[in-house]
Order: sequence, then C-alpha cells, then structure tokens
Amino acid sequence: MSDERLLSERNPLPTAIPERLRAQLNFLVEVDKLKTVLRQSPLAAVERRENDAEHCWHLAMMVPVLAEYSDEPIDVGRTIQLVVVHDLIEIYAGDTPLYDAEAGHDQEARERAAADRLFPLLPADQAEHFRALWDEFEQRRTPEARFAKAMDRLQPFLLNWMARGGTWQAPGVTVDDVRRRKSVIGDASSSLWSAAREMIDEGVRRGWMRPSA
Amino acid sequence: MSDERLLSERNPLPTAIPERLRAQLNFLVEVDKLKTVLRQSPLAAVERRENDAEHCWHLAMMVPVLAEYSDEPIDVGRTIQLVVVHDLIEIYAGDTPLYDAEAGHDQEARERAAADRLFPLLPADQAEHFRALWDEFEQRRTPEARFAKAMDRLQPFLLNWMARGGTWQAPGVTVDDVRRRKSVIGDASSSLWSAAREMIDEGVRRGWMRPSA
Repeated sequence: MSDERLLSERNPLPTAIPERLRAQLNFLVEVDKLKTVLRQSPLAAVERRENDAEHCWHLAMMVPVLAEYSDEPIDVGRTIQLVVVHDLIEIYAGDTPLYDAEAGHDQEARERAAADRLFPLLPADQAEHFRALWDEFEQRRTPEARFAKAMDRLQPFLLNWMARGGTWQAPGVTVDDVRRRKSVIGDASSSLWSAAREMIDEGVRRGWMRPSA
Repeated sequence: MSDERLLSERNPLPTAIPERLRAQLNFLVEVDKLKTVLRQSPLAAVERRENDAEHCWHLAMMVPVLAEYSDEPIDVGRTIQLVVVHDLIEIYAGDTPLYDAEAGHDQEARERAAADRLFPLLPADQAEHFRALWDEFEQRRTPEARFAKAMDRLQPFLLNWMARGGTWQAPGVTVDDVRRRKSVIGDASSSLWSAAREMIDEGVRRGWMRPSA
C-alpha cells in the first residue's frame, strides 16, 4: 500500500522540540497519507472518487446533524472522535470496498496489522487511547460506536443516490446485498433505516439497483 | 464560487422521507462541495494542493492528539466540533489565503453572507446551533475556539515544513509575516508556539523563508 518510510523522515523536525511532542507531530504528518487512500464512492459535487480523509470529515459533519435520530442517547463529541479515527488504519491496510467479498476475506487481519504499526507511533498512553477508540468502533458495543457505524454506511449510500447508482451497480451486486449491508443503520436508528429503505425501494423502481437475484 | 443550485436538486430525495430529515440530508449532500474548495497548502503525502474537507479532518485529528498542550482546560469533543464546521462557509465564500492581503479585504463580509446562505438550509434550531459554533470559532472568546484556531494555523505550518517552504515562499512574504500570522498559536498554547518558533528559526536558517525585510 505505501512505502515503509515515515513521511516525517523526509524532513525531520528540529530536535530542540521535546521528544513527546515530536512523536505526536510526526504521527500527525504521517496521517496526511489518509488523503491519498481512494474509496469507491463518487463525490456528489464533482466527478471523481472520494478519499478517506474527505469521507471521515463528512461523517464528522453527519454525526451532530443526525444525532437526534439515534435510538439510544449518544455523546456527540465522543461519536465524532470515533468517526474521525475509524479509517486511519487504511493508511497501511488500504480501503476494502463494501461489496468486494474477496478483499473482505483477510480484511480483519490486514487492518489489525496496520493498527499495530500505526498507533505505536504515538506516545504509549495515546497509542492505547486511539487504539481503544478504533476497537470500540469496530466492535460496535457502545451506542456511540453503533451510531458511528450507521453514519459510515449512510454516507456512501447518500453519494450513491446522488450518482443514481454508483457502487450499487458494481458487478453482481443486487438490492439484497445493499439491504443486507445497509441494515447496520437500523442497529442505531430506526428512523434513518426507514428513510434508507425508502431510498432503496425508489432506487430499484428507477433501475439504479438490480432487483433480487 | 459555485452555481446557485443546491446539489440535492439534481436528484431530490423521496418525499416519503419526513421533511425535517430531508432538509438535514439535503444539507449533508450540499456540504460535499467542501471537498472541491482548494487551499494553498501542499499535501505532505503526494504532490497536490489540499482541499478544505481534508484540512478540516486533519484538524479534527490534531485536536485530541495535542489537547494536552492547551494552556487552558478544553473540552476535546466540543473543540473537534468547532474545527469540523469552521470552514463550511468557504463552500460559498471560497478559501482566502492567509498571506493574501487583498483577498483578506472583504473576507469578513463574504464569509458572513455565505453563512447566511448555508446554515438556514438546516431546520431553524440546527441552523442557529451551527451558526453559533462558527461564530464561536471566529470570535475566539472561548478556550476551545482559541485552541481550534491554533490548530488551524499549525496544520498548514506543518505541511509547509514538509514542503520545505510551501506558501512561506509566496511573493512578498517574509519571516515577519509568518511569525505575526502564526503567533495566534501562542494565544492557546505556549508550548506549541515555542515549537513553532523553533521551526520558523530553523526554516530561516535553511532558506525556506525570507528573512526580515
């Protein structure tokens, strides 16, 4: 996915900066790579694919706007933190398209290896903190993590709607696949899932998704 | 800056979705435009300029990593919300480069007009909430807003360091301009400002910035 060298090694910071802060700044330079990880989703505003940093920012906008639809009370600030960090590991693991079963195969192992490499760039206490946020998102055991995951599914769904198809039209994908993968939205919000189902039904009527196989 | 039509008008959502939620989703589609607003800053990871959505995501990463250096206690979740929304108005107002005095001239009026146009796309209660967040960021009266502003100055500074110059080398800019514009970092964090000054001094020694006029 990316070369082994840290970005910061190309132009090291002055050693007069305290070591802890230097490690943090080096990490913050390294995560610039997230802006180069392309997703399958087409943007709504211009014709190109979205990158992970743009996607994460979009989720961070969605959380406070849509938080009122969470079926369980959530801490908005914490939920935003989850979406901001949730794709960091893709800097080393790459993006795994939702409807790509083959790439999905070793996804968990690849992403765990990436996390083991990325977070320890931070001082130990912060490495642990950010790793815990990422684990929380992945495991979906808290209301915040469930809502964050729902945003992660709803955002490309909105972009596909705007593209009148987008990745819904990937080879072999039918409305059943879309419904199954997007039902995660319903684990966090019955009203957002209800809206998404309206859009799925309408998408099938308009021919933007293949009907059931 | 952008055509007058809302993005969502290109492909309206099903009317079966409740009106309030539809307005919120239309707003969330509209803000996709932030991904098309280019800044002057060069990315560290690849050779191209950064866009506003990427920049806002980067700030949202910096806040929790660097919060410990705030001279005043800050609420991390709230500070992240400030950085996530702080550039939204550039969807209609465009980016105003830090060292461009001419563009800076009518910046305030342009940005206020953009805010008057953008936030009312949301239901009234949320329009008021997000407008208040944006005002808070601009006015820097809270510790959270001061820290958010510091991140907004530190992030392109880091990218310029990685580019061995970047916008520090814009016509007419000297180290005095950089020091003056970046001193805002010191309003939030003496230790981050001290690190930035180390980098400025080193930048001058290496010829990446013009010495005082």
